[in-house]
Amino acid sequence: MSGNTFGTLFTVTTFGESHGPAIGCVIDGCPPGMVLSEADIQFDLDRRKPGTSRHVTQRQESDTVEILSGVFEGKTTGTPIALLIRNEDQRSKDYGNITETFRPGHADYTYWHKYGIRDPRGGGRSSARLTAPVVGAAAIAKKWLLEQYGTTFKGCMSQLGEIAIPFESWEHVPNNPFFSANASILPQLEAYMDDLRKNGDSCGARIDVVAENVPIGLGEPIYDKLDAEIAYALMGINAVKGVEIGAGFKSVAQKGTEHGDELTPDGFASNNAGGVLGGISTGQNITASMAIKPTSSIRTARHSIDKDGHPIMVETFGRHDPCVGIRATPIAEAMLALVLMDHALRHRAQCGDVKVSPPPIPASSR
Amino acid sequence: MSGNTFGTLFTVTTFGESHGPAIGCVIDGCPPGMVLSEADIQFDLDRRKPGTSRHVTQRQESDTVEILSGVFEGKTTGTPIALLIRNEDQRSKDYGNITETFRPGHADYTYWHKYGIRDPRGGGRSSARLTAPVVGAAAIAKKWLLEQYGTTFKGCMSQLGEIAIPFESWEHVPNNPFFSANASILPQLEAYMDDLRKNGDSCGARIDVVAENVPIGLGEPIYDKLDAEIAYALMGINAVKGVEIGAGFKSVAQKGTEHGDELTPDGFASNNAGGVLGGISTGQNITASMAIKPTSSIRTARHSIDKDGHPIMVETFGRHDPCVGIRATPIAEAMLALVLMDHALRHRAQCGDVKVSPPPIPASSR
Amino acid sequence: MSGNTFGTLFTVTTFGESHGPAIGCVIDGCPPGMVLSEADIQFDLDRRKPGTSRHVTQRQESDTVEILSGVFEGKTTGTPIALLIRNEDQRSKDYGNITETFRPGHADYTYWHKYGIRDPRGGGRSSARLTAPVVGAAAIAKKWLLEQYGTTFKGCMSQLGEIAIPFESWEHVPNNPFFSANASILPQLEAYMDDLRKNGDSCGARIDVVAENVPIGLGEPIYDKLDAEIAYALMGINAVKGVEIGAGFKSVAQKGTEHGDELTPDGFASNNAGGVLGGISTGQNITASMAIKPTSSIRTARHSIDKDGHPIMVETFGRHDPCVGIRATPIAEAMLALVLMDHALRHRAQCGDVKVSPPPIPASSR
Amino acid sequence: MSGNTFGTLFTVTTFGESHGPAIGCVIDGCPPGMVLSEADIQFDLDRRKPGTSRHVTQRQESDTVEILSGVFEGKTTGTPIALLIRNEDQRSKDYGNITETFRPGHADYTYWHKYGIRDPRGGGRSSARLTAPVVGAAAIAKKWLLEQYGTTFKGCMSQLGEIAIPFESWEHVPNNPFFSANASILPQLEAYMDDLRKNGDSCGARIDVVAENVPIGLGEPIYDKLDAEIAYALMGINAVKGVEIGAGFKSVAQKGTEHGDELTPDGFASNNAGGVLGGISTGQNITASMAIKPTSSIRTARHSIDKDGHPIMVETFGRHDPCVGIRATPIAEAMLALVLMDHALRHRAQCGDVKVSPPPIPASSR
Repeated sequence: MSGNTFGTLFTVTTFGESHGPAIGCVIDGCPPGMVLSEADIQFDLDRRKPGTSRHVTQRQESDTVEILSGVFEGKTTGTPIALLIRNEDQRSKDYGNITETFRPGHADYTYWHKYGIRDPRGGGRSSARLTAPVVGAAAIAKKWLLEQYGTTFKGCMSQLGEIAIPFESWEHVPNNPFFSANASILPQLEAYMDDLRKNGDSCGARIDVVAENVPIGLGEPIYDKLDAEIAYALMGINAVKGVEIGAGFKSVAQKGTEHGDELTPDGFASNNAGGVLGGISTGQNITASMAIKPTSSIRTARHSIDKDGHPIMVETFGRHDPCVGIRATPIAEAMLALVLMDHALRHRAQCGDVKVSPPPIPASSR
Repeated sequence: MSGNTFGTLFTVTTFGESHGPAIGCVIDGCPPGMVLSEADIQFDLDRRKPGTSRHVTQRQESDTVEILSGVFEGKTTGTPIALLIRNEDQRSKDYGNITETFRPGHADYTYWHKYGIRDPRGGGRSSARLTAPVVGAAAIAKKWLLEQYGTTFKGCMSQLGEIAIPFESWEHVPNNPFFSANASILPQLEAYMDDLRKNGDSCGARIDVVAENVPIGLGEPIYDKLDAEIAYALMGINAVKGVEIGAGFKSVAQKGTEHGDELTPDGFASNNAGGVLGGISTGQNITASMAIKPTSSIRTARHSIDKDGHPIMVETFGRHDPCVGIRATPIAEAMLALVLMDHALRHRAQCGDVKVSPPPIPASSR
Repeated sequence: MSGNTFGTLFTVTTFGESHGPAIGCVIDGCPPGMVLSEADIQFDLDRRKPGTSRHVTQRQESDTVEILSGVFEGKTTGTPIALLIRNEDQRSKDYGNITETFRPGHADYTYWHKYGIRDPRGGGRSSARLTAPVVGAAAIAKKWLLEQYGTTFKGCMSQLGEIAIPFESWEHVPNNPFFSANASILPQLEAYMDDLRKNGDSCGARIDVVAENVPIGLGEPIYDKLDAEIAYALMGINAVKGVEIGAGFKSVAQKGTEHGDELTPDGFASNNAGGVLGGISTGQNITASMAIKPTSSIRTARHSIDKDGHPIMVETFGRHDPCVGIRATPIAEAMLALVLMDHALRHRAQCGDVKVSPPPIPASSR
Repeated sequence: MSGNTFGTLFTVTTFGESHGPAIGCVIDGCPPGMVLSEADIQFDLDRRKPGTSRHVTQRQESDTVEILSGVFEGKTTGTPIALLIRNEDQRSKDYGNITETFRPGHADYTYWHKYGIRDPRGGGRSSARLTAPVVGAAAIAKKWLLEQYGTTFKGCMSQLGEIAIPFESWEHVPNNPFFSANASILPQLEAYMDDLRKNGDSCGARIDVVAENVPIGLGEPIYDKLDAEIAYALMGINAVKGVEIGAGFKSVAQKGTEHGDELTPDGFASNNAGGVLGGISTGQNITASMAIKPTSSIRTARHSIDKDGHPIMVETFGRHDPCVGIRATPIAEAMLALVLMDHALRHRAQCGDVKVSPPPIPASSR
């Protein structure tokens, strides 16, 4: 099992490399009869795509998706949906100098030792470009979850490098390239990024993601707990080094009298749980955060070795995101959506149709 | 897929409830010909078992394991190994008062809404007691990894509630009930716990876990990345709300010039990666941390509702760990061992035998 | 993936060896809320168990099943159901002479070369005794399918060695040890078996199995077709060498005008398909047959080799079924039930609740 | 789990419909470093493709394969290999008349009831056209098995409708469109087919397939037995209704003294087992047969119903194989190759490298 399929009932099997002819995926298990066209998928692909501001990679990709199967006369048929995205702006010669060396922080070293061979062009399979097909697949999951349960997804950047970004309003998020829920901090973020680029350096980010109107009862008691699956999904995104659900690491210093969310006839009084108890969704919002490391591809020279173990210095040119976290919000939403979709189908299998949270959950506990 | 099987090639399928007749598991995929007896398994079970200090639950379980299959004349045969642990100290009447109510922070509410039925005795399937079989299964994985690659596992508590525990030496860990790598702080930890118990409250903890002498090349490029699988494994432990690999959430504020581990002819110069690059092991130590929430079962009365939605107050008596993190270290080691074992076999399948890190990794980078 | 788990949503993971302390299984994915006790499971175990006539092995096993988990106050909870059957009549010394030799037709040779070690006592894991847990698991599936859809299972022996057994009536089946649907042929079958035993020889059998009131729409278009899964399930039973669905090998000589089942407003006019078209159930009866080879354990001396490749003669004593087909009918039913159960849940996951065949299917086409 | 992925370690996930824009697959788990180009794959695709004689469908498809990923500088990299085959000769209007009706023997009825929607163009996903990607994927498996173990695959038609085809020599097989291993019978086969076409009828076929130089020890003891997996693989091919391993249904009338293959210092003395004992390969040839039903698409009018249950008559025009068995031999080889490839990797995972049959197996026992 090469691990290249996400999910158990709603599955996404991807293929492709950063500078190969195409990337894409096969989606299995989509319920039949849902209206679906490329336009439904393109929206999220466009939110993720490169080249849309000066703070991200300048690689130009339209990321135009083609549906190859599984849709007939505008509706899903229940059979596999294949998505194809042709790579348009490969510049493999940018990477000629790295075929014999291992870039610090990159997968070069590990791929080489695992496989004895690697595709060095743009990181090959380890490129964050491979998040595009999964964002496409998740757009289908999001559509189904919205239609069935009213479930929605949103996310924002809550920290850029050393700058914490206080939450103001979700309304700001679509209006800036950082997915910041705070408008007044934007000049500071831009100056920070400009500075980084000037210095040939990069930074990390923290991303928060939320699912609303989540059915109650999703997740399995042991192993495939909903929170375990979310951790797997988010930690599997390129460059992620940490994942939190609900109160996350703050739970360590909390007391039991503080952490455990009380229940009232109107619903939960708080949401330290992040919408998951015992591995199963409570019907509250699912809240999760992830830590993204600074981009490894930087212009500053760094110590490394070549394939023969000789010391070298590596500077990485080519086109790179100085903070991969900037484009990570739609990816985090996508992974969360795939987990919920998969577990919605799993719940139907064993327990029949799911419930959307039965007692009204007051806004205060979300 | 009910998600009750951990792993893909070395798999653990568990069964049982906290107060049922027995708990156990079936382990598939163990390589044949390894010397194995109950004694190899009992050691880690004893490290995890309840009742060994005043700071943990006083439930008395010997956790004696019986091997039901898969071993012939003291060696594994390659066929399924079944482990059986009889429950000995059930006191189901302790839990009579909770069958109609939902305890804050517990899985009562979610199980009820998912299944329409739940076993309320000691939390049923959601009890941390169900980590015993997996610790048993992991003892087999640890033995094989040690014999094949010299891989070893260790862990410690690095924070108890509000008290950070500075690392001093691994030697202290087996000599105190907290798995603390610091001896001088023990009186403070004990006083903290005594205070909590007196107040009918509970606290969280942070656990660090490390694997040494890890083969290089374990993990898959996409989805089943080694770090994603570790996140899944650790977040799946009862009460865990956050997981970090390597620098974890500290990565957010790091610069690329700081985070990316440089390579030298003698190996990596640092280990912010936590031993994983691009989802694949580097041969350095694997380092991970997890946040454990405060125990939900406390004697302090809390607001909740019963099955009919009426408001009630809940106090939880019975026997409980005032900090479930205290016994969590061997569980974290176990989950990490299962992930590495599984990926060692997966590596063999696709790429042939694994390499233990080829250039010597200096101690400084571990 | 050691392949020791049957099914994808309703899964059975078995353990044990013929002469180990116990055999059993873990059943995952059972819907919650179904009334279940050991008695529901024991009935089919008793139909399969040894020692019930002179024509089968004289090993005495009560095959008493214990439910270890997953049932609370007489109802399934949705969590794993573990079944345990203690072995009671091991006589390992019967098998002392075979540890160094390979018995013709047995798995001795292949286990030895695969694993480098094998449990020789009664065939170890390769014994047909391991069909007991799966018959137990299938009893749960049968109960659920009956309650949900009215689905029932039945089977009979249609050939014993050279003797074809013309079908007369299902009513005869429970009244004779051969599962023969023909009463008048019983003296002939008994004489045939007595003769075989006298000659130290064995024979094969053909078993037919039928599922009635099958929901329409079970099975997947490609790979996990319902008929492919049935073939996998039946061919996986010990000693099976051939599987047919519907018209089976007779299809080869049929014309398209004869084979393709016509439809009428009252349903299908015939059932050459065996209830499966394009891998998906039609709502007609599922009909399948399997060929069982003659028992390999016979008293007649045969040529073989020992572990060092030296020629030897092997006679097999101990207790054996002279025709393993005689007890195979409930096993075939069990495997068919497990396939349908699994696909009923899979159907629910992707397409919602299943339909029991919408237009009435006339009896003539069943 | 929609069941659309074949295999567990070497996996093939397909997509596409008969008259959609493209068909293809994603292959996971291929070992790295193997020389591979489109030419390696095209050979078997050409053996399977339509339009090569008057006895098969006249649809013109070049079945030109494009490798989209997983190969770098002519070698496999260990990452997913995607194959794309554009459909070139769709004539969807041929099928306009069948959107409202169910053709006897076809999947129309079952797809409709399962999904509530179906792609009627050329059978959509149920078309045998979907065997093309799997033949492509299997060409990769065949290449690896040949290079590693010398394993080879061959097959032939052993019966066409009522005409048994006595085996003469494998040399004849590539020289006639029927994959007949008998040259003198060809005029009879051609006349039979011409007659069928004239009468607007169709016929079935029996296909034999053989793997040579098979490693010993492939297959798992329970459930994923090698023969069970072969049965699954072959029964999953379009139109197959029966599968045999080794002596198959002839085993029923055999005695134990006849069936069980004796061993000598030179190897097995016969091969009734078909190369599998206890679910594990013996190192002998794997031999299997399958029964293919007559094509359901015939010009002769047949009774059926429309979607509303009204009686209608159906004649099927368009382009169809009058015997789908004629092109089935390379498909059967492909499925057998995929099973062996998967189990070769599974064996490596648990037991390390496989052995090619240690004692020489004399030709007589193959």
